[in-house]
Amino acid sequence: MSRQERVRRFLENRLVQRAVIVVIVVNAITIGMETSSRLMDEIGGLLHAVDRIALVVFTTEIAARLYAYRRSFFKDPWNWFDTVIVAVALIPASGPTSVLRALRILRALRLVSAVPSMRRVVGALLTAMPGMASIIGLLVLLIYIAAVIATKLFGDIVPERFDELPRSLFTLFQIMTGDDWGNVAQDVMEHKPWAWLFFIAYILMSTFVALNLFIAVVVNAMHENEPSAAERQTRAELNAVRQELAALNAKLDQLLLRDEPS
Amino acid sequence: MSRQERVRRFLENRLVQRAVIVVIVVNAITIGMETSSRLMDEIGGLLHAVDRIALVVFTTEIAARLYAYRRSFFKDPWNWFDTVIVAVALIPASGPTSVLRALRILRALRLVSAVPSMRRVVGALLTAMPGMASIIGLLVLLIYIAAVIATKLFGDIVPERFDELPRSLFTLFQIMTGDDWGNVAQDVMEHKPWAWLFFIAYILMSTFVALNLFIAVVVNAMHENEPSAAERQTRAELNAVRQELAALNAKLDQLLLRDEPS
Amino acid sequence: MSRQERVRRFLENRLVQRAVIVVIVVNAITIGMETSSRLMDEIGGLLHAVDRIALVVFTTEIAARLYAYRRSFFKDPWNWFDTVIVAVALIPASGPTSVLRALRILRALRLVSAVPSMRRVVGALLTAMPGMASIIGLLVLLIYIAAVIATKLFGDIVPERFDELPRSLFTLFQIMTGDDWGNVAQDVMEHKPWAWLFFIAYILMSTFVALNLFIAVVVNAMHENEPSAAERQTRAELNAVRQELAALNAKLDQLLLRDEPS
Amino acid sequence: MSRQERVRRFLENRLVQRAVIVVIVVNAITIGMETSSRLMDEIGGLLHAVDRIALVVFTTEIAARLYAYRRSFFKDPWNWFDTVIVAVALIPASGPTSVLRALRILRALRLVSAVPSMRRVVGALLTAMPGMASIIGLLVLLIYIAAVIATKLFGDIVPERFDELPRSLFTLFQIMTGDDWGNVAQDVMEHKPWAWLFFIAYILMSTFVALNLFIAVVVNAMHENEPSAAERQTRAELNAVRQELAALNAKLDQLLLRDEPS
Repeated sequence: MSRQERVRRFLENRLVQRAVIVVIVVNAITIGMETSSRLMDEIGGLLHAVDRIALVVFTTEIAARLYAYRRSFFKDPWNWFDTVIVAVALIPASGPTSVLRALRILRALRLVSAVPSMRRVVGALLTAMPGMASIIGLLVLLIYIAAVIATKLFGDIVPERFDELPRSLFTLFQIMTGDDWGNVAQDVMEHKPWAWLFFIAYILMSTFVALNLFIAVVVNAMHENEPSAAERQTRAELNAVRQELAALNAKLDQLLLRDEPS
Repeated sequence: MSRQERVRRFLENRLVQRAVIVVIVVNAITIGMETSSRLMDEIGGLLHAVDRIALVVFTTEIAARLYAYRRSFFKDPWNWFDTVIVAVALIPASGPTSVLRALRILRALRLVSAVPSMRRVVGALLTAMPGMASIIGLLVLLIYIAAVIATKLFGDIVPERFDELPRSLFTLFQIMTGDDWGNVAQDVMEHKPWAWLFFIAYILMSTFVALNLFIAVVVNAMHENEPSAAERQTRAELNAVRQELAALNAKLDQLLLRDEPS
Repeated sequence: MSRQERVRRFLENRLVQRAVIVVIVVNAITIGMETSSRLMDEIGGLLHAVDRIALVVFTTEIAARLYAYRRSFFKDPWNWFDTVIVAVALIPASGPTSVLRALRILRALRLVSAVPSMRRVVGALLTAMPGMASIIGLLVLLIYIAAVIATKLFGDIVPERFDELPRSLFTLFQIMTGDDWGNVAQDVMEHKPWAWLFFIAYILMSTFVALNLFIAVVVNAMHENEPSAAERQTRAELNAVRQELAALNAKLDQLLLRDEPS
Repeated sequence: MSRQERVRRFLENRLVQRAVIVVIVVNAITIGMETSSRLMDEIGGLLHAVDRIALVVFTTEIAARLYAYRRSFFKDPWNWFDTVIVAVALIPASGPTSVLRALRILRALRLVSAVPSMRRVVGALLTAMPGMASIIGLLVLLIYIAAVIATKLFGDIVPERFDELPRSLFTLFQIMTGDDWGNVAQDVMEHKPWAWLFFIAYILMSTFVALNLFIAVVVNAMHENEPSAAERQTRAELNAVRQELAALNAKLDQLLLRDEPS
């Protein structure tokens, strides 16, 4: 058994895989604990040490995988995912900006690639995406058009909501989620009483398109799924029918053979 | 090849169609940029120029389509759609009112008619409408009745929400979407403590009817859709059964022919 | 043709039925217009006159139906529905209280019994009810238990939300609909920091039960519905199989008859 | 008939089971009435007496069940459920803390184990859980990661929402339910204008995962359910096909037998 083979077996060992999951979870918890200044004062050194160890484990594991699988390492998109996440985690160690430091917690996402059932769920979510592209495009178009109209018509009246296109886009996204839209609409309607028409039309249309987005996902999920109990039974009965047909066929062959004009 | 034929080929050329889509998208972006006074100061002339060019392109394209397809141009409702949208865009060039100016962005809707997959999505949304008519009617009736009752009972107490029928209709639509209804109800309940009965009954009923509207759309979508993988397999098995039956039939024919009393 | 027969034919005439629908709609609009004091000053007399006429039409129509169908009149629950609604409308003409006056608009509900497609929709909504009884019971039980606990634990802290059981029930219903629950929870958490446990558990449980209520309705709707296009085609193929089997059967009979040992 | 047998029959008697349900409901109402200080002043003694009697009934009933079913008592999880609930109810009688007193109302949950249809509904809800584990895990992971990032980035700006990890978790759960998220986001955006990116990404992702959780439950419910009317009819036709095949088989046997070369 070559060394490469042994490394591969080691990586595919259940205990090793569980140990990696434990390291991911422990590391996610320690990064969470680092947000508490009280805990940082008390056990900050310990938390940093755990973080370092976890990073070493992750880097080693990915290096080992690269060694064990060679070229096929790059064929699995999850390997790319893990590599990028750990690489991001390596940057902030030297970087000064708080954003990069905060992104270290993204390492917890490695849980998704390490637990097979989560990997499957995320895979299913991603494959549902392309079928939704047209409806998402329609929704984006709707929000964009509504935002341009709102900026032009309401920008001077309620500048804190509609003064520029980006703010209008944000406000209209908020209205689509149904949050606090009544107040926004009433602020506008104080000056333009007919504005209810705009808001109600926008809510009805965006809800209707979002609903159809939702339906497309449901219908998709249903069709790609395994057959139901009822469908399995129907298929079992069809198999029985085919077996009975085969029996009939055999008997007819017998008749044909016997009557063979000798 | 006649000139009409050549114009048609030109219009149905993929590159030409993509070029139109690009013009639509660029024009939608420039109209959005026009909402920013800073950008208007800097590159206002450029934005207006792009707008003019886009309008010329759209008008020419529609005129070309009219020339190429003659009478059948009017049979496709999407052609009507495009014509109306571009016509609306032509008005504000001379009109003074801000509303018409704001509606110029509706030109971005041409994206729907230009991209086949969006055209299909919108078509599907529209065909779902008639099946929902009865439930929508019921919902409108429910809101109307609740609004008349609320205006009569709560109009004097909370005039800023229920003083007249139109405002009550708006408030009850807002309550149906679940936005801020607790505050509205509590304002009323300060004077009429039994008003919770009205609000809770209204929320339960409108939610229940809206839920059934939603279900009607889902059930509709499922039934008009293509067969699922399981159904395709069932059908494949049924085909196999029929082929086996045909084989049996052939053998029986053979038997019948042979035994023919000569 | 007896007079009873003629009355029945008159009532079942399409034009007569449409005329009744028009009266219902016109009456609903005039009752709505009566809520406007401006309109009442201007055309109050006209509105009252229309209301009187509509009431006469409704009373006459129900009396005619009673005469035409005799006992079977009472077998159709929709007739009971119409009678009760018109009777309610007759009371406030003499009653002084504003509530009864406001309930006159319930007459608009006659639209449901007069338009067949709406009648069907409401019928479908009502038949869905019994299957939901257990889950609704569970939801009510959940809200009641949470309300008793909240009254005892938070009644002294946030009396404007939880001072007595009825108010707690209202607040928890509001929280279930997701309206403004963050503020309620934060008011409580200022004094009892662990209260987030109560609110999050309540939201998760009530949402989960409500979700299952929703699913029960969807699954029900799907099962009672007509077969899908795919199912219709499967059934058509099964019919073809049975016809082929019948042909085989006929040929076998022929064989059996011919070989009959004479 | 042994005494054990007689106790069992008594417990399984319909009237006895209904009497227990009545005691549960009456007790739930009296515990609710105890929250009103006015009612406690007036009929506090009566309410306490009813509570004592109910507790005696519940304890006796569970003891009787233990006597009647012996070991198999412990096999039914609902018996454990009832025992724990009544035991919890026994503690607060002596305990001083208000929390334990408030939990007495949990006795109303015995209604679930006493009414068969509710027992079935809760059973169905619980069996749906395992299939949702992966998606729930993904959702928890998403909230946790977002909370760590929000604490680090926004903790200093809006401390009343994001100062520590637990508060951030609460705020992000609130945002996921769509409650008041616009205000939270705008408070943050005053200092960090790019924060909209975080909030919109979080809302889109958490909604999308929650949606898929929902779909998983629906698809599950559909597949475990009984066959639809259409499926039942398909199966009936398949049975008819098999009967016709059996008839063909019998006739072929007859032919084979008759032609038997004697």
